[in-house]
Amino acid sequence: MVKKVLIIGGVACGGKTAARLMRIDPEAEVTILEKGEFLSYAGCGLPYYVGGVVKEYKDLMSTPIGVIRDATFFRKVKHVDVHTSHLATRIDRKNHTVAALDVASGEEKTFPYDKLVIATGASPIRPPIPGADLPRVFTLWNMPDALAMRSAIDSGNMKRAVIIGGGLIGMEVVEALSNQGLDVSVVDLLETPLPAMMDEEFGMYLLKALKTKGVNFYGGEKVQEIVGCNGELSAVRTDKREIPADMVLMAVGVRPNTAIAKEAGLEIGDKGGILVDLHMKTSDPDIYAGGDCVEVDHVLTGEKTWQPMGSVANRQGRVIADNIAGIPSTFHGVAGTAIMKAFEYTIGKTGQTKEQALAKEFEAEAVTIVDADTPHFMPGSASITIRLVADRRTRKVLGAQVFGPGRADKRLDILVTAVTGGLTIDMLGNTDVAYAPPYSTALDPVTHAANALKNKIDGLMASLSPSELKQKIEGGWNPLLVDVRTPDEIRTQGQLPYEFVNIPLGMLWEKAKELPQNREVVTYCKISVRGWDACAILSRLGFERVSVLEGGIAGWPFDLVK
Amino acid sequence: MVKKVLIIGGVACGGKTAARLMRIDPEAEVTILEKGEFLSYAGCGLPYYVGGVVKEYKDLMSTPIGVIRDATFFRKVKHVDVHTSHLATRIDRKNHTVAALDVASGEEKTFPYDKLVIATGASPIRPPIPGADLPRVFTLWNMPDALAMRSAIDSGNMKRAVIIGGGLIGMEVVEALSNQGLDVSVVDLLETPLPAMMDEEFGMYLLKALKTKGVNFYGGEKVQEIVGCNGELSAVRTDKREIPADMVLMAVGVRPNTAIAKEAGLEIGDKGGILVDLHMKTSDPDIYAGGDCVEVDHVLTGEKTWQPMGSVANRQGRVIADNIAGIPSTFHGVAGTAIMKAFEYTIGKTGQTKEQALAKEFEAEAVTIVDADTPHFMPGSASITIRLVADRRTRKVLGAQVFGPGRADKRLDILVTAVTGGLTIDMLGNTDVAYAPPYSTALDPVTHAANALKNKIDGLMASLSPSELKQKIEGGWNPLLVDVRTPDEIRTQGQLPYEFVNIPLGMLWEKAKELPQNREVVTYCKISVRGWDACAILSRLGFERVSVLEGGIAGWPFDLVK
Repeated sequence: MVKKVLIIGGVACGGKTAARLMRIDPEAEVTILEKGEFLSYAGCGLPYYVGGVVKEYKDLMSTPIGVIRDATFFRKVKHVDVHTSHLATRIDRKNHTVAALDVASGEEKTFPYDKLVIATGASPIRPPIPGADLPRVFTLWNMPDALAMRSAIDSGNMKRAVIIGGGLIGMEVVEALSNQGLDVSVVDLLETPLPAMMDEEFGMYLLKALKTKGVNFYGGEKVQEIVGCNGELSAVRTDKREIPADMVLMAVGVRPNTAIAKEAGLEIGDKGGILVDLHMKTSDPDIYAGGDCVEVDHVLTGEKTWQPMGSVANRQGRVIADNIAGIPSTFHGVAGTAIMKAFEYTIGKTGQTKEQALAKEFEAEAVTIVDADTPHFMPGSASITIRLVADRRTRKVLGAQVFGPGRADKRLDILVTAVTGGLTIDMLGNTDVAYAPPYSTALDPVTHAANALKNKIDGLMASLSPSELKQKIEGGWNPLLVDVRTPDEIRTQGQLPYEFVNIPLGMLWEKAKELPQNREVVTYCKISVRGWDACAILSRLGFERVSVLEGGIAGWPFDLVK
Repeated sequence: MVKKVLIIGGVACGGKTAARLMRIDPEAEVTILEKGEFLSYAGCGLPYYVGGVVKEYKDLMSTPIGVIRDATFFRKVKHVDVHTSHLATRIDRKNHTVAALDVASGEEKTFPYDKLVIATGASPIRPPIPGADLPRVFTLWNMPDALAMRSAIDSGNMKRAVIIGGGLIGMEVVEALSNQGLDVSVVDLLETPLPAMMDEEFGMYLLKALKTKGVNFYGGEKVQEIVGCNGELSAVRTDKREIPADMVLMAVGVRPNTAIAKEAGLEIGDKGGILVDLHMKTSDPDIYAGGDCVEVDHVLTGEKTWQPMGSVANRQGRVIADNIAGIPSTFHGVAGTAIMKAFEYTIGKTGQTKEQALAKEFEAEAVTIVDADTPHFMPGSASITIRLVADRRTRKVLGAQVFGPGRADKRLDILVTAVTGGLTIDMLGNTDVAYAPPYSTALDPVTHAANALKNKIDGLMASLSPSELKQKIEGGWNPLLVDVRTPDEIRTQGQLPYEFVNIPLGMLWEKAKELPQNREVVTYCKISVRGWDACAILSRLGFERVSVLEGGIAGWPFDLVK
């Protein structure tokens, strides 16, 4: 019995659904309607095409052996009937048909289905800023966007770029433009980059790194106008300044494309995406949906979330195909993982931040650690900062943020798996991740983070995050800061912008008696491993209120005095 | 109340126990007896010192800021009393004392304890081969071993090295010696490297890689004599050949140092290590043991195993200290992870192989996949081979092996965490590991492996591992092999050493009718993604017995025809 499967959208989820159906369902006759010209391309690779890392745009839509995944490819190899430049306009659920506009000819067509898959993706938000329609004001979401940006850069006339929006896409493009010699400025309403994704401290780490690359970040500023002169773009005006611009990228966010689903009366969720069950089925049993246009469950909270990611879309396409083929298959949700590269830095997160987790009634606790990705004696050893969150009650890992020049992506993926698998910090601390000096320290940074959080939750270690220390001191707290680094380190690494006492760790046992026992004490060093030793030594010597600054100087996201 | 804690051994577990006790137990008065001269050094870093990657041996025993972790350091910073060159000789459990020999003075001393920690480590096995006592015949287990090897290499007279034993240490040293211009040969009783750790196929991958570096591997050979000439080493003679040698490394294995524990009547396990409970406590409630001298539980089987690894030893030291300090803490076991680097290749494993799992009455199934670590359009993209094992009944991940020039260590650590957390292949396939093009493919190789194994277990994909295909063909099976690569690929990548038909995938729908429908068919391509498409196409066309060769040409560990 032939089963007509119609798929609206052929980029990530749609293309994957079609490809898998061909593999597993001999009865399926698959048709794809794609509004654009391009199919099945690596959307997440677009910043790397804009940045010149990927030389040919066709590489983003070809197989590893160089075959373009176009309509001919889908037809010939996958036996899938593909209509590009076909905009689906209406779903007739009663008659099981979809109306579509052939954009090229203007013709209205009707496509029948037994099972329909909505994979309409998302679209970038273009806020109604005056001047947003000037030339050289771009968004970067699809292949034509990338081609337009690339061509502007190739013209050789682009010297200064302004990126409106410090989210994931905006920040990915910073490196792409900066590496090509453009002067890059970023404007965001909030104070730090990646505000929707990272704690402020981690945004600050990225900010510090970007400053060393000459990138300007104007946080807490609102764009009021994109300024033109004789019809040509000239600047971006915020509530605080005017920034000259030869090109502008609007990267203020995306929203799910749900108009056709909404109009058909399918259920839409609070986050604006189409609602689907565990099998990716919508409120109509003959209609599935997946990719950027749907909401998904969060593996920790079970709540609906929206995570427009090509990787998630691909996984969902597989589940949809399975269910259409009669193989019961579920998508269990996401941990909410995101990662990006900026120059030699990696920043990413999974699960929940402490604040998010507290808001969900977890008894969340968090710790920040800084560690080396490989032993200091190995060439190329570089640092990683991890903020790990766990539940005091269940001791389960709830989330993590990572940053570093060091190999933070590996640690993030360990933590994604730990969140998904419901590992406790105790299990995580004992997990025998692979150790050899080229790959990690004997106790991997993830082990270190788990152990530090155990210490904190078990009441063995009193500690403060950098923000906590800063806020308390600014609120009038006056602890005795004891920096246990060597004077040489203090000179080269910089110091906290507060009064402190310097006693190198090796001298602490003897010199501690000179310290006033009645003061509260905060100890630290470069990464606060010695800082924690100092904490222990002072406790032994009778100091009763001693805590350690998490991450030490290396983990301090704010300005240091040098 | 002061509590005397005596620790026998100050390298990994012992040093860690002492350091943590200082931090968390104000009542502990800690003493370490270390038989050697060196304390708390990175034993796993020794091959990198021998190989000249680590320039100074002191780097292996110093803190990241360059302070040597010697007796003075332990005394001054950790307030731990350290006696180096003190060989513990006898435990008097009744009187709670340990007798030790001061190796320098020859003096017998007695040390009292309230709690004793045995961290005596392991020692390399020196098999009774004639000539084993010749000069320039080394083992590589401790710092003096490494210093001796390094000094031999620095003499400039070493041209040819023979390594006896293709296990982890032997294979790590291959690169160390080869990079310094030595001609390196390895001899092992078994046919492939890392026989205790990896399936033969993965040993073959490593072997192929080593051959390209000019390393000789003589598998299935028994060393009969280390040949000397006028008291000088000249060659290694096996049952098949004589290999000239200026230096020899004996790396045939290590065994736990348990004599003192045995003599004291503590329980010893079947694997030869001291038996401890979850709290790392021996059969004597006042004696703990950890590190290379103890057996540990396997997280999957619950059975005792022996895993002499510095990383595990450090984790156990922490648990011992906690329990001595009165904090209930457990070590839940190991997944059996190991990893090593050889030139630009990474090889590692965790959990169980299919055969090991079947022997434990798991209903184990496995699949081998080859994938790129990052998208083909990103510079530096390199391949990874993963063999994933899961239980058909519970669908839980049981183990994995990885190999590649690509970043296999990250995937291994994801899989270690999956094994430890009891993830099913379904959960693993859906886990949203971090995707951005610099870090992974949209569907990470681990996702790909999980999905392939799901297909296989669910009966959606009939497939054969390379060994299975080879064995069946050698046993007389005569399937029609269909290679769906392009002729160009076949020319450059090589072909299987069997008769085959070449039909590029894009032509398969039309050309398949020329194939005999009554033959069993095996399809493949470079990595068998197109191979699986071909499988699906042929099934659709009525071929009933079609399977795919796992990993394709890239995953073929045996010789190819070029």
